[in-house]
Amino acid sequence: MRQGHLFVVSGPSGAGKGTVLKRLINEYDNLEYSISATTRHSRKGEVDGKDYFFLTENDFFKLVDDDRFIEWAKVHNNYYGTPKDYVLEMIEKGKDIILEIDIQGAKQVCESYPEAIFVFLAPPSLEELARRLDQRGSENRHTKEVRLNNAREEMKERENYDYEIINDKIDQAVLKLKSIIIAENCKIK
Amino acid sequence: MRQGHLFVVSGPSGAGKGTVLKRLINEYDNLEYSISATTRHSRKGEVDGKDYFFLTENDFFKLVDDDRFIEWAKVHNNYYGTPKDYVLEMIEKGKDIILEIDIQGAKQVCESYPEAIFVFLAPPSLEELARRLDQRGSENRHTKEVRLNNAREEMKERENYDYEIINDKIDQAVLKLKSIIIAENCKIK
Repeated sequence: MRQGHLFVVSGPSGAGKGTVLKRLINEYDNLEYSISATTRHSRKGEVDGKDYFFLTENDFFKLVDDDRFIEWAKVHNNYYGTPKDYVLEMIEKGKDIILEIDIQGAKQVCESYPEAIFVFLAPPSLEELARRLDQRGSENRHTKEVRLNNAREEMKERENYDYEIINDKIDQAVLKLKSIIIAENCKIK
Repeated sequence: MRQGHLFVVSGPSGAGKGTVLKRLINEYDNLEYSISATTRHSRKGEVDGKDYFFLTENDFFKLVDDDRFIEWAKVHNNYYGTPKDYVLEMIEKGKDIILEIDIQGAKQVCESYPEAIFVFLAPPSLEELARRLDQRGSENRHTKEVRLNNAREEMKERENYDYEIINDKIDQAVLKLKSIIIAENCKIK
């Protein structure tokens, strides 16, 4: 039976990863979102094994020690990670699986699972990114500067990726990501 | 400016190359059919430089001697070839160009222009291919056997290609070819 693939979508914050992926998941069958493990408490309505795998810190670090994460990180005092077993199980079943992650996380995936396909989602320009951050409204001036500086640095990472999608039109970006997934499934190894 | 790509679509006779490409050209902008040169006489309605480049045998072999063909062959006492200059000009202009060709021709392209992207279009099975050849009606039993034997041999070539599309459903085959073209244009070199 054919195996699935792991697609890693990364890029600077504000490039539109979440929006593109939400649209894609609706349009494309045979594609699963990767489910993260986390040590944070579940919120109302969140389902264990669907939204997240909720773990105690002890259990989380047992998995870390056993090298059972494709990547993991600490965010705001909680730990988040991508469990290897879930991803490998989906791939074995022939399912494609997609992981939305920041640049640092993508680097970790590249080390632990280099067979993944890496897609860099870029904003049309840093000016446009600044405009998008303004629109979010929630950013103060300092946070915005930090994010823009990060983005400037992160844009340099693109050359380590397999594909680049410049997210100037959402429809086009979704079509491109979908095309990459279809094309990778036609590849002769 | 971004450069275009040369896509080579090949596969056993009866796999449906012509049908898939006709549909694709209608659906996809920025894609040009490669125009062949030929020594055969133009038929009514055929336009030089659009349907074919019509050449004398002398002019044709001048191009052969000057290595100006990506591939060429003799078919039924006439010569046919893919002029390098036309293809390179389109690629320089940023146009993608698509070439539908038999397995032997694709091998020649691979030698003269290895940067091309090679797509193998396969029938769902040899049984289905036999059925399609029957439906054409124009094949006698001997010709059919020859074609099936050729197809059996040609199927072994697939592993030298970049992509494979199994043409069981025409809509799906067109979508896959289109996706390959879009994805290749997102690739980071």
